[in-house]
Amino acid sequence: MLIFTEQELKQYVKLNLEAITTVEDGFTKLANNEVKMPPIMRVDVQDQNGEVDVKTAYVKGKDMFAIKVSSGFFNNYNLGLPSGNGLMILISTQTGIPQALLLDNGYLTEVRTAAAGAIAAKYLSRNNIGTAGVIGAGSQARFQIRALKLVRDFKKILVFARSANRAKKYAEEMEDEIGIEVQVAESAEQVVRNSDLVITTTPANKPIIKAEWLHPGLHITAMGSDAEHKQEIEAEVLARADKLVCDSIAQCAQLGELHHALDSGVLTKNSFITEIGQLTSKELIGRENEEQITVCDLTGTGVQDTAIALFAYNEMVKRNLGLKVENKTLSLKN
Amino acid sequence: MLIFTEQELKQYVKLNLEAITTVEDGFTKLANNEVKMPPIMRVDVQDQNGEVDVKTAYVKGKDMFAIKVSSGFFNNYNLGLPSGNGLMILISTQTGIPQALLLDNGYLTEVRTAAAGAIAAKYLSRNNIGTAGVIGAGSQARFQIRALKLVRDFKKILVFARSANRAKKYAEEMEDEIGIEVQVAESAEQVVRNSDLVITTTPANKPIIKAEWLHPGLHITAMGSDAEHKQEIEAEVLARADKLVCDSIAQCAQLGELHHALDSGVLTKNSFITEIGQLTSKELIGRENEEQITVCDLTGTGVQDTAIALFAYNEMVKRNLGLKVENKTLSLKN
Repeated sequence: MLIFTEQELKQYVKLNLEAITTVEDGFTKLANNEVKMPPIMRVDVQDQNGEVDVKTAYVKGKDMFAIKVSSGFFNNYNLGLPSGNGLMILISTQTGIPQALLLDNGYLTEVRTAAAGAIAAKYLSRNNIGTAGVIGAGSQARFQIRALKLVRDFKKILVFARSANRAKKYAEEMEDEIGIEVQVAESAEQVVRNSDLVITTTPANKPIIKAEWLHPGLHITAMGSDAEHKQEIEAEVLARADKLVCDSIAQCAQLGELHHALDSGVLTKNSFITEIGQLTSKELIGRENEEQITVCDLTGTGVQDTAIALFAYNEMVKRNLGLKVENKTLSLKN
Repeated sequence: MLIFTEQELKQYVKLNLEAITTVEDGFTKLANNEVKMPPIMRVDVQDQNGEVDVKTAYVKGKDMFAIKVSSGFFNNYNLGLPSGNGLMILISTQTGIPQALLLDNGYLTEVRTAAAGAIAAKYLSRNNIGTAGVIGAGSQARFQIRALKLVRDFKKILVFARSANRAKKYAEEMEDEIGIEVQVAESAEQVVRNSDLVITTTPANKPIIKAEWLHPGLHITAMGSDAEHKQEIEAEVLARADKLVCDSIAQCAQLGELHHALDSGVLTKNSFITEIGQLTSKELIGRENEEQITVCDLTGTGVQDTAIALFAYNEMVKRNLGLKVENKTLSLKN
């Protein structure tokens, strides 16, 4: 068994076009029924405002699949620790024997989540974007913009976060990193009204984005909600969208924005909803014109985890990296 | 994070009375509603006759809980490999950060499964056992007898397995190890008719034990069935039992012997069924007299995994064992 640490994974597994293509291929296989993806397992640790998720997917024809454990403990900032954590296990599809541990502390989840955002933008946003808006100023708000930059050119970023300080820090750091203007907005409304594409990246429990702010040509990717109680956009936003796309309809109906739209009755099980894999597989098309309003609801799927874990494994193995653990011996390969 | 290998876990984590008490305490907490145990996650890899299960349980008041990944790939014998494999992850209940990896290749599962068998015997079998019967001659058939020996004295073991060679090997090896007579039976019927306690340890897909073989005073522990399609004992056996006990009624109703009894209608959701934690917590009593026929249906629960993983962790840490992996460095503690 090979063990890879966060540091080396961060060094060699990059959020690049290849990573995006890998995740895209996973979605296509999901749409083509080549993936077995059981429901998410979740453990809530309410005393600590914490949750642990387990996600997995077996992709036909691959020699390994991932089981990912990821945690979100939202009081961790009191201890000076990040809220997110976790690791991935790669298991042989031939023997069931664990082949590798990716001790990424959540890094690969950031990458595959951002990749899904880029895929959503590629199929659903206008080709020409002036301003990209982002709500939330945490780590994923950074990754989403990095991924978006790989598939769309844009001139300006508008950011809003509850903490003005965090938004300011985000603007400074991302302006340096991306090399385009990043402006702190005064409200979520200002972001939505003035952007061609908006990404929401918060753990919000009630809607931040209102339907009355929508405008022709807007694309929204909502990636924050991945639990029953989370919601970033009003249910009415989904109802008003010309095209509504989910990473997994089954998951979004339980854990995503779609869940609230179904609950409130503005959408029903018979509403026309697309899965992202139907776009990547070319079964259906995404944006059809400059005027459509499109929404993508991302809850995070096991097939993304298997895709990114295999991608990471290959990047590491071809460099002969990792700690080798045998039953009886421990040895550093490097 | 600390990493422990199979070799050191086998060396220092023993199937002893303390391990049994630890698992018993887990069942008690489950009965007392101090445990959150989500349903098992399962991935089937049908091409390879394989399955991977993920089990977990959060036990209130403990500083860590386990997520266990275990695989069963039943064509592995063609490759000269054991069918079972897996590992456990211990996660902090304060921060969600993984604290330890137990690369036990299924060893700790063997221990906690056998511990549950011993607990079932302790509460449900006669105090005085002449002959203990075992059906199946694999690894768990050995562990079950070792665990039973810790809670019951018996004079003789009767073993039956489909492969006469494996049964013979079992008899020779266990006679050496346990120091009492081990006789190979000619049939499952011979085992059941001539034993006071029978343990079934097979991956059978159709019943091996018939109701007509039951006799007063008999206790049966069926630990093989942990999937919808598995069944070791006729549904009628459960219906005829004076006392039917499950490790988890919810799990057994889906994956255990109980599942088939409910399906066939010999039992219903209103039938009186006990959970093992109701015995260990003293809420209910087990065997009441020498004549009762008792059956225990074990599917294997996440709370056993958390219990044994914490037990193992403590055994290892007090000896200062393990490989320490930090984000940026790898170092052997010993």
